[in-house]
Amino acid sequence: MHTLWDERFALRTDNISSSAIRELLKLTSLPDVISFAGGLPAPDVFPIDKFKEAAEVVLTEMGPSALQYGTTEGYQPLREMLARNATKYGLQISPDNVLITTGSQQALDLLGRIFINRGDRVLVESPTYLGAIQAWNAYGVKYVTIPFDDDGMQTDLLESRLRTGIKFIYVLPNFQNPTGVTLSRERRKVLVEMADAYGVPIVEDDPYGQLRYEGEHLPPVVVMDNEMRAKEVPIYSGNVIYTSTFSKILAPGLRLAWVVAPTEVIKKLVQAKQGADLNTSTLTQFLAYQVANTPWMKTHIRNIRTVYSERRNVMIEALREYMPEGVKWTEPKGGLFLWVTLPEGMDSGAIFKTAVEAKVAFVPGGSFHPLGGGENTMRLNFSYSKPEIIVEGIKRLAKVIKDNLI
Amino acid sequence: MHTLWDERFALRTDNISSSAIRELLKLTSLPDVISFAGGLPAPDVFPIDKFKEAAEVVLTEMGPSALQYGTTEGYQPLREMLARNATKYGLQISPDNVLITTGSQQALDLLGRIFINRGDRVLVESPTYLGAIQAWNAYGVKYVTIPFDDDGMQTDLLESRLRTGIKFIYVLPNFQNPTGVTLSRERRKVLVEMADAYGVPIVEDDPYGQLRYEGEHLPPVVVMDNEMRAKEVPIYSGNVIYTSTFSKILAPGLRLAWVVAPTEVIKKLVQAKQGADLNTSTLTQFLAYQVANTPWMKTHIRNIRTVYSERRNVMIEALREYMPEGVKWTEPKGGLFLWVTLPEGMDSGAIFKTAVEAKVAFVPGGSFHPLGGGENTMRLNFSYSKPEIIVEGIKRLAKVIKDNLI
Repeated sequence: MHTLWDERFALRTDNISSSAIRELLKLTSLPDVISFAGGLPAPDVFPIDKFKEAAEVVLTEMGPSALQYGTTEGYQPLREMLARNATKYGLQISPDNVLITTGSQQALDLLGRIFINRGDRVLVESPTYLGAIQAWNAYGVKYVTIPFDDDGMQTDLLESRLRTGIKFIYVLPNFQNPTGVTLSRERRKVLVEMADAYGVPIVEDDPYGQLRYEGEHLPPVVVMDNEMRAKEVPIYSGNVIYTSTFSKILAPGLRLAWVVAPTEVIKKLVQAKQGADLNTSTLTQFLAYQVANTPWMKTHIRNIRTVYSERRNVMIEALREYMPEGVKWTEPKGGLFLWVTLPEGMDSGAIFKTAVEAKVAFVPGGSFHPLGGGENTMRLNFSYSKPEIIVEGIKRLAKVIKDNLI
Repeated sequence: MHTLWDERFALRTDNISSSAIRELLKLTSLPDVISFAGGLPAPDVFPIDKFKEAAEVVLTEMGPSALQYGTTEGYQPLREMLARNATKYGLQISPDNVLITTGSQQALDLLGRIFINRGDRVLVESPTYLGAIQAWNAYGVKYVTIPFDDDGMQTDLLESRLRTGIKFIYVLPNFQNPTGVTLSRERRKVLVEMADAYGVPIVEDDPYGQLRYEGEHLPPVVVMDNEMRAKEVPIYSGNVIYTSTFSKILAPGLRLAWVVAPTEVIKKLVQAKQGADLNTSTLTQFLAYQVANTPWMKTHIRNIRTVYSERRNVMIEALREYMPEGVKWTEPKGGLFLWVTLPEGMDSGAIFKTAVEAKVAFVPGGSFHPLGGGENTMRLNFSYSKPEIIVEGIKRLAKVIKDNLI
């Protein structure tokens, strides 16, 4: 009789990321470790009381439907609210342009499912979001990368990439994960025009768009695409698939995000989602709607901005004070992360273990580079820890880096 | 400038079910239609007050963690509870053998993801669960079917199928969806022995195992497999991947299910789930644990059994009273569904529209047959509608069938 699965069954391995990085990150939850590694919102800003009230109202007034199966497309009032919000941002859409997903990660997965045939080429910024790499590896994607500077992806290199045949372009224009960098207005324009000219869709991932701490709001790529073609079509049917989430403005434990796209794309995503999980939790959708569809929501987001912007400032101050010469970092205008570049030749992966022993953690930058590189970089999260903890953590990290300078 | 997605982008179509059936089923939610089509639990048995209490406790005492990201594996106390419960059923497992999924549909999807390479052959009962067909079609599966009688899959035909090379066997042993039929104890034994001899894993889908209304409890296939090899291994590392759900015993709106499997399989599923949705809603997991980890849960399940068993009896009575000669049906000992066979040559799909016009709906049986056939069959749900509605619905359905007899 056989007992060992690995010997016995040819489980697929080609389509699953090794996740070494996630295994590594388990270390960061050890006691006393100050972790700048996660992408966690601060629990301090979770509106717990609002959720309590919402649970009372939803279960009392709508219990039977809040606990029942729902439609794959999502809770209709929530889709309507998101469509109304999009209109405020200059994007005329209907609820049919909106799909509710089980977190942004599912949005990325479903996009992989409807777009990517094994071997298809997808253009990503380098570095880019780890979760997207993981999602699309499952579909046998080949990554093509475009380099990055302080204004985001270098759009002067776009055309050379698009000429090689690209299935879609993936971009995080606001306070990018992992770098914190924002794509400039000029480059957004180049991006939408070039993508249109080559007939290549853009996937715009915008989890932090509302978390800007300074500077002027820039229109989302989907809005600029729409403006370019607005006279043609009253309801959006352009070239961009936009996704955002409630994880950073309400709570990640809800697992709620959404996609805005032309209806033809939404229909395909709905079919894919039927096979993936039938529908997103009705209960969490009802709760999110109850909490978010209020004037209070604006105040709440303003409050998050205040808290995170202070933490960003504190982290940048601490970096200035404690980091040895030759270490550089981005100074993001929003979001949750900043990006540290160590002196050439240093390997952030190699000092990770030492750092954890010194009770501080980060994500080594290499993991955000789908084609390799970035060994001397790291991502730091500034939203999760309280200011005094941030200072202590940066002190510890600076010491580890100093001790390991070549 | 291009505007039409279908012209412009080669969206994949090979991996998405057409879902014609689900489109059809939208008709069943028209007002006044008595629907036996859904797989819906009765909202009458949702423990709304328990969820209210749970929300108050969870948010007051554990708000920050209930609203934060969680581990991909699932909420540890919930995994521990499920491991304890399995032990009561005669299966020695640890929490590491348990993965929490976003509904059973996700469990099926993830299993497809880790097992199925394009063209792989999977053995299913015919008819079988529609959601499984949908999930695995996305991975390019080839179905091999095994016929069914009143004791479940005809295991005397198993060996001939297994000889052709099968990736895994999918079975719903208790009150199968769609037929309501239960796999006999003798056949369960043949199934586990044969699967072991051929080194083919079994996926056991058991959403209704606790909803038995008469007759003696039969051991799950995973338990029989374990008994066969118990002396070898203290913690389960056998041949069966078991999945069940909170949808039918608490509420489907939570989107909570679980997989029990050897740890090697759980690890692969966890990696796949990271790419699919990172983690299942922490909030709904905390709520489910709060509600289910109580002695009250037993009473609750007993109550569901009472309600559904009455509805089943009422439906069977009504079928006996109103159906014309030549119409047959199963008399399930549990679950949510029974299976109607119309006289040879009648097509349940063809009378579906007439039925909806007569304000009654069902699922045409053809859709449960991955290789075709079953045109003269239909699935009826008896859990959702109240008894008096069931009687009226069966009257209407009987009239439609009579009017369309050949």
